[in-house]
Amino acid sequence: MSEELHWKTAITSVEPNKVRLRGYPIDKLMGKISFSQAIYLVLKGELPSPEIGQLLDAILVSSVDHGAGPPSVLAARTVASTGAELHAAIAAGVLAIARFHGGAIEEGMNLFLAVARRADEKKMKEEEAAREILAEMKGRGERASGFGHRVHTQDPRTARLFSLAEELNLAGRFVRIARLIEKELKESIGKPLPINVDGAIAALLCDLGIPAEIGNAFFIISRVPGLVAHIHEEKTRMRPMRKIHPADFEYDGPPAREI
Amino acid sequence: MSEELHWKTAITSVEPNKVRLRGYPIDKLMGKISFSQAIYLVLKGELPSPEIGQLLDAILVSSVDHGAGPPSVLAARTVASTGAELHAAIAAGVLAIARFHGGAIEEGMNLFLAVARRADEKKMKEEEAAREILAEMKGRGERASGFGHRVHTQDPRTARLFSLAEELNLAGRFVRIARLIEKELKESIGKPLPINVDGAIAALLCDLGIPAEIGNAFFIISRVPGLVAHIHEEKTRMRPMRKIHPADFEYDGPPAREI
Amino acid sequence: MSEELHWKTAITSVEPNKVRLRGYPIDKLMGKISFSQAIYLVLKGELPSPEIGQLLDAILVSSVDHGAGPPSVLAARTVASTGAELHAAIAAGVLAIARFHGGAIEEGMNLFLAVARRADEKKMKEEEAAREILAEMKGRGERASGFGHRVHTQDPRTARLFSLAEELNLAGRFVRIARLIEKELKESIGKPLPINVDGAIAALLCDLGIPAEIGNAFFIISRVPGLVAHIHEEKTRMRPMRKIHPADFEYDGPPAREI
Amino acid sequence: MSEELHWKTAITSVEPNKVRLRGYPIDKLMGKISFSQAIYLVLKGELPSPEIGQLLDAILVSSVDHGAGPPSVLAARTVASTGAELHAAIAAGVLAIARFHGGAIEEGMNLFLAVARRADEKKMKEEEAAREILAEMKGRGERASGFGHRVHTQDPRTARLFSLAEELNLAGRFVRIARLIEKELKESIGKPLPINVDGAIAALLCDLGIPAEIGNAFFIISRVPGLVAHIHEEKTRMRPMRKIHPADFEYDGPPAREI
Repeated sequence: MSEELHWKTAITSVEPNKVRLRGYPIDKLMGKISFSQAIYLVLKGELPSPEIGQLLDAILVSSVDHGAGPPSVLAARTVASTGAELHAAIAAGVLAIARFHGGAIEEGMNLFLAVARRADEKKMKEEEAAREILAEMKGRGERASGFGHRVHTQDPRTARLFSLAEELNLAGRFVRIARLIEKELKESIGKPLPINVDGAIAALLCDLGIPAEIGNAFFIISRVPGLVAHIHEEKTRMRPMRKIHPADFEYDGPPAREI
Repeated sequence: MSEELHWKTAITSVEPNKVRLRGYPIDKLMGKISFSQAIYLVLKGELPSPEIGQLLDAILVSSVDHGAGPPSVLAARTVASTGAELHAAIAAGVLAIARFHGGAIEEGMNLFLAVARRADEKKMKEEEAAREILAEMKGRGERASGFGHRVHTQDPRTARLFSLAEELNLAGRFVRIARLIEKELKESIGKPLPINVDGAIAALLCDLGIPAEIGNAFFIISRVPGLVAHIHEEKTRMRPMRKIHPADFEYDGPPAREI
Repeated sequence: MSEELHWKTAITSVEPNKVRLRGYPIDKLMGKISFSQAIYLVLKGELPSPEIGQLLDAILVSSVDHGAGPPSVLAARTVASTGAELHAAIAAGVLAIARFHGGAIEEGMNLFLAVARRADEKKMKEEEAAREILAEMKGRGERASGFGHRVHTQDPRTARLFSLAEELNLAGRFVRIARLIEKELKESIGKPLPINVDGAIAALLCDLGIPAEIGNAFFIISRVPGLVAHIHEEKTRMRPMRKIHPADFEYDGPPAREI
Repeated sequence: MSEELHWKTAITSVEPNKVRLRGYPIDKLMGKISFSQAIYLVLKGELPSPEIGQLLDAILVSSVDHGAGPPSVLAARTVASTGAELHAAIAAGVLAIARFHGGAIEEGMNLFLAVARRADEKKMKEEEAAREILAEMKGRGERASGFGHRVHTQDPRTARLFSLAEELNLAGRFVRIARLIEKELKESIGKPLPINVDGAIAALLCDLGIPAEIGNAFFIISRVPGLVAHIHEEKTRMRPMRKIHPADFEYDGPPAREI
């Protein structure tokens, strides 16, 4: 029985006093690479350059928290409020990161990859491929993920991600495609529908060669620390079993300050 | 009704085109601080020094993955294998990080904090406080969390974490207490029961002023990317619904290599 | 390796074309016993009498839903609202059934069992044991779980459960102990703190010989169908990502009617 | 703010001392209807006949447990083994009930509903509609959910469910369609691919008018008690953190016995 169940994994080897992550001794990585670089290493199998590490840092910083209103935070706080343990509240928050919350990253990546594939296969310009695909989506009543935002008309995080990617020389084909789509949308709709932070992350992850299926993982990895902050605040500052209003709250933390 | 449900949060403020994390504009943090520093900021409320950022990087790199055998990985792979979505498999993995798996960090922190408190309250030497508390634990049949390991007699990650903390001038009272306990345990048991990686992280988090209740959060935050790697491998490399042997697997990734 | 991992289970045997639950062919149970009886069989290992089946039916009916306000419902709806799948929303709801929500059953069972044990060990009257234990709890600042309710002063479900248990001849020692505690609480506090539905279920499960550690399971088993109803309503009737107010809702289902 | 968040729910009304489920006072339902009938009531909004209650009892009994091998059980036991609480282990088990495990009910329902719709729309015989749709599925490389089983060639639960449904006069159009598909599959493949228990449940739920989107809920509702039994056995009989072999286990419960 044992033999036929034997299986293989390419992630980590563990021997007494020796743990190797994708071949590298983990104790040698510690102090040498950042957590962001380790995330890339464990997911992609290769060590990223310091520049990629910096871009990933910016991506992961950008989504660490977005206030108390998103459903992942409300689900995590609701569970924490019942006296449940930390890991249960985190799990509930993660379960709320789904199609309509965080899901725009994966959907955006699929859109950008489709445009690139169409341009390659049909040997057409990327803008034509974008126009074609957007028209098809319109015909099916679908909207482009990663564009527009309920709150932010000019999300400062998008601009920062793109300028940083350019400084680091990491903005490539997919950032270009994202911008082509933004331009097409403006023309076809008649008003701007700017790339939002999810769309920017989607373009950058495509340029980094991350598969679309784990695009949302970056949002989840980034957001877990924010969820922990909310769970801890709920458990230490609030009354158990309070009714948690999803919008009627105000910020009373440190005043606005500069880094 | 609305009024009495009004509540306050000190984590993040969101206004149109402006997201401030603990008072800092998030777009200004991007490119300036690492993900590890942002984790500290969101959890503690203040920006850490670059040195604290480096120590946190090492802590978070140390636990990113530990092979395919831990229950968090097996739970995540089992759920992934049924065709469940990424977030469901991550949530299952997080739910397996509990008292006996990852829980040693919080328990270790509580032990170290108890020794410090006892020494302060009774104005006794820390080694005496440690001896007293270990004797009481022995009387209750409890063992000290954060010491000893089934696989590793000399966990290289512990040595690395401690040497790095000393280089960075961040090893303080709690690293000292952890070592005192290690010494006491060796004397009382008659054989070495070295500080393991959980114990080392526990001591360092105490020295960083992290509350014990969120000690395990650092393990969860660190491990989520590893879980994602396993889930993705399961979904792309394995047959759905396979029987996942919990021990009979081998590593076939990149060969041993140096950074 | 395989041999040392060999293990045993006493719940269900599966052979080709033959599934036996606790020894009984499952196809022979189908049509003969109710779901409630099957729940008892799988948990306790023996077939219950029809009377026990009826009492369990009443227990499980009593907790199937309690409106849209409890945190398990709000967590499940919040997750459902993000486009997550049914099982993810159910899991989030289950994670919200913790110490302060549903947890009163297990805690009540532990209290009733403690009173019985004290009376037996000290050969004292149950009312004296109850008085002693309540006084100790008061000294530790603990309140008795299973008594009093924020909304219902006279929960009709409690009366119904107890009268049914008496009709079926299933009310035993622990129902008596629950009533003794109710009497003690009234005397010591000076106003009634009646047994609530959790307390009534706790007493009845003790009388049925269910271990306290799985007391909350009956609440979870009972509530899952209610969660499914709320998730389905959220997905079919509401807009995705709406802000879910935790109290400002009204009932617009079928008007009050009699069975 | 409060006003625009006001919302409505048609499931349960709660007033002091009065809980009404779909309009019926819950205390009046207790002792009168079975848990299975309450499940139908909360999900469909109307009280089912006693016959529907009996058929639901049989459906829910049929899936309460299927041994220690399914991934939902292994995920739940893996989480329980780490010292996690009951609700966390249940949640992990529920997360493993996904496309390839339990998902055949929803997929089977969608298939049967598609055949009925095709027959109605094209005014064709149901066998022709079934043949057409199966051919289309074959063209897309899809297999029919609810037919065939790895272990059971003649699942005794299928036969029992169908004979009971006929006795109770509840087998209708969709049982007929399921059998037509079974016949078509046998002819086109050249060997029998019998309706399995998921397929039988799918057909019966269609005949009861349950929407396909909550088809899997019946599997989850049914399986939660079985998961609790496994979690309790794991916690009381096994060593924490043991390696849980997914296949090398044997049954040592009560010997084969008749009801």
